[in-house]
Amino acid sequence: MVFWKKLFTNSTSTSTSAQPKFSGDLVLTTTDRLGEASIYFSTETEIDLYELEELCDAVGWSRRPIRKVKKALQYSFLVVSMWELRGVKRRLIGFARATSDRAFNATIWDVAIHPQFQGKGLGKAMMKYTIKKLRSNEISNITLFADPQVIDFYRRLGFVLDPEGIKGMFWYPD
Amino acid sequence: MVFWKKLFTNSTSTSTSAQPKFSGDLVLTTTDRLGEASIYFSTETEIDLYELEELCDAVGWSRRPIRKVKKALQYSFLVVSMWELRGVKRRLIGFARATSDRAFNATIWDVAIHPQFQGKGLGKAMMKYTIKKLRSNEISNITLFADPQVIDFYRRLGFVLDPEGIKGMFWYPD
Repeated sequence: MVFWKKLFTNSTSTSTSAQPKFSGDLVLTTTDRLGEASIYFSTETEIDLYELEELCDAVGWSRRPIRKVKKALQYSFLVVSMWELRGVKRRLIGFARATSDRAFNATIWDVAIHPQFQGKGLGKAMMKYTIKKLRSNEISNITLFADPQVIDFYRRLGFVLDPEGIKGMFWYPD
Repeated sequence: MVFWKKLFTNSTSTSTSAQPKFSGDLVLTTTDRLGEASIYFSTETEIDLYELEELCDAVGWSRRPIRKVKKALQYSFLVVSMWELRGVKRRLIGFARATSDRAFNATIWDVAIHPQFQGKGLGKAMMKYTIKKLRSNEISNITLFADPQVIDFYRRLGFVLDPEGIKGMFWYPD
């Protein structure tokens, strides 16, 4: 994980002519049989909602109305997206967002990594990026609701389960 | 609890000359040795921050910077306050707020009932009012983080602990 951490710490904004329409923070550059590829994070809120739907489909989530997803992004405090860039083509490969009161609390929702990009440490890198962005806004209490299979993933990132007996609760009608 | 429910359902806006500067939803009118008093809910976001601090002190919370509290209220999706009115005098006796993406998720924070007004069903009434307001905005997923001593209180309101093994988690630095 040292490798990711180093890249993450040294992230820079893109301003090259190769990717003229995109700004973000570089995570990684790789070369494979298809040529050179880069992976970037962005906090742009204007995301192609159909591309986001494609990512959500790929991770197996239930479909949600595009209209509501658009509103949710609009009113999220932070929207993080992760992109693979090859030449001028880019592909959405990761996503997370957070609601916040911009003062004390933030809650992270909808964390997704495209299955083809899982197991490479990119989810961890994206979450560290998300936490860093929230922390840079003076937010001290970062929370989330974790499905059983990802509890260990979040624990390794420093998230604590039920601290001091505090329990996450969900409302359902009587 | 039928009593509260009835009052809650039949809540009306105040527009009488007796409380000219206040609008809200009537919960209850009582008469005691000091005369007639009413209890109202409001969703006004412009709350006297020192009055709110007084309430937070009364319930024993740690002091928070007024500047940050102001910002948190400004960026909360919903701010609910509960007031006791006697003639033209009003007193803040309850508070809750929620962050939200205005589409799917809302998270309730800072639920406080003044100790002198606890044990009367007012906390339950205020939470029902809060839930109703969130639900009227098409928000389906209402969440909160409950301290151990209030878990049963929220459970009685329909909140469920760790549904399907989903766990609330808090971030702390490594």
